[in-house]
Amino acid sequence: MTSEDLFPTRHEQHHDRFTRLDPVIHARNQARWDGPLDEVALSHYERDGFLWFEGFFSKERMRPFFDELKEMAKDNELMKSDQSITDPESGDLRSVFAMHEISRRFDELTRDPRILGMVRQLLGGDVYIHQSRINDKFGFQGSGFNWHSDFETWHSEDGMPRMRAVSASIMLTDNNEFNGPLMLIPGSHHYFVPCQGATPKDNWKDSLKSQRLGVPSQENLAELVEQGGIQAPKGPPGSLLLFECNILHASNKNLSPWPRSNLFFVYNSVDNTLEDPYCGHQPRPDFLANRDNTEALAMHDHLEPL
Amino acid sequence: MTSEDLFPTRHEQHHDRFTRLDPVIHARNQARWDGPLDEVALSHYERDGFLWFEGFFSKERMRPFFDELKEMAKDNELMKSDQSITDPESGDLRSVFAMHEISRRFDELTRDPRILGMVRQLLGGDVYIHQSRINDKFGFQGSGFNWHSDFETWHSEDGMPRMRAVSASIMLTDNNEFNGPLMLIPGSHHYFVPCQGATPKDNWKDSLKSQRLGVPSQENLAELVEQGGIQAPKGPPGSLLLFECNILHASNKNLSPWPRSNLFFVYNSVDNTLEDPYCGHQPRPDFLANRDNTEALAMHDHLEPL
Repeated sequence: MTSEDLFPTRHEQHHDRFTRLDPVIHARNQARWDGPLDEVALSHYERDGFLWFEGFFSKERMRPFFDELKEMAKDNELMKSDQSITDPESGDLRSVFAMHEISRRFDELTRDPRILGMVRQLLGGDVYIHQSRINDKFGFQGSGFNWHSDFETWHSEDGMPRMRAVSASIMLTDNNEFNGPLMLIPGSHHYFVPCQGATPKDNWKDSLKSQRLGVPSQENLAELVEQGGIQAPKGPPGSLLLFECNILHASNKNLSPWPRSNLFFVYNSVDNTLEDPYCGHQPRPDFLANRDNTEALAMHDHLEPL
Repeated sequence: MTSEDLFPTRHEQHHDRFTRLDPVIHARNQARWDGPLDEVALSHYERDGFLWFEGFFSKERMRPFFDELKEMAKDNELMKSDQSITDPESGDLRSVFAMHEISRRFDELTRDPRILGMVRQLLGGDVYIHQSRINDKFGFQGSGFNWHSDFETWHSEDGMPRMRAVSASIMLTDNNEFNGPLMLIPGSHHYFVPCQGATPKDNWKDSLKSQRLGVPSQENLAELVEQGGIQAPKGPPGSLLLFECNILHASNKNLSPWPRSNLFFVYNSVDNTLEDPYCGHQPRPDFLANRDNTEALAMHDHLEPL
């Protein structure tokens, strides 16, 4: 079942961008939600569409995650499965999906009370994991990601009805100017930017390697950059970025020898579960867009040290 | 006629990097050369291989150059000639060579007494223009340049015998973190890094669009970055970068809407004129490697305001 398509995209003809229909901070539409973010942080998130916490976790706290990933890379069956995506140029590992289902350590991190507390506050209530992934760019590798809104894809290809999701990205390595850090256009989440071009069947098999569809027009990008500029948060392992599902972001090639490895947990409101994809195709695999396990996340009861 | 090849490269087998044979500041081997650079600046250049002058010229001083380039872009004959290079991905203009021969304004700028004074000091005497070019990256365009030493190419493909040349790059637009600024490995000019792979005939027809040959091994790059890091000078139009012919440099894609347009004048010592190419092929065209007009540059007599 699919409700009315409020965010039409991937049509043959051009459509103008329009102001988003959903609040950015959903708790404000309800009785005030008690949570770890103060009014300054909430206003910042509302205005820019992201919050950056440099060195949120310690470097030491991240090491076991990094070590576990190195072990996973030796798992031939996992590496050959659909949920491991390789770089179109180098053939190197680019992404692994459903990290929280593969590993208990990653699963527990999704329920860290500090992260989950902030996410619940932003989304105004109970949430579940829509998608989790690791994005790797090894030294001298990684062809980058073109500009896109995650919501645009999740709406069109996965049937996510409204803008009520947030991504938490945890840096497992240093993110610096030269290893292809995430670039964001502050304020771009205030608009839905329809993208031209119909979605082919099984688009994800190519789009996760190299995004061509779902890229806004250069005219729209230029206008939004003119308004908000570009920011690329940088920091040591353990830094945390919370960003709104509809903010435009991209990243460049890693021309340095320094690997860049970032973990992403996408939280969606339990009141925003997936419908049939609005593009009309079959749903994408569950490791890309969770439909099976949408029960509200419970805080992990043991508050591990940062 | 070709002298002994002191810098072998482009062989099928791997060769180790070795310490450069030539001084970095050639004036020091002679009686002290009087010039505009003080000992601090000279030591900085010797150690890092470049000098950065943020806002050397005013933005206003650069405008007529930028305007003249826009006029040139309308010149169909020039744009279709060999000396105009297009981007392999977008088809947009990437480089125009021999700027100083096309335009009197650019020619006079090569003889600006301040720039020419510093260059003569670094190269220890009279110099001529080996190559001049403009490198353009329009908004959302420009696929970048992989890591390379200019000298490695100029030696192999043009027969430049020794490391006694310097590039002056003048920014005609803002160079910032997001529009693909030049990245340098400080200190890498102290080594000659042979590159693997034989040079095909007429390599320049491809290499100026997308550099594959003449790229050091990832192992060598990682070692040199470990020692010296990476720096990307950023600044407003009119900023000036002087960099040694053998320093390793690269640049990334321009993912921003902001154009990046940089002018390059390559000065070579009159005691270092070209021989036959060491790769064994015919010399490249004169607009890439000047053999005809190697008379020493005279300072432009009118010192225009910065």
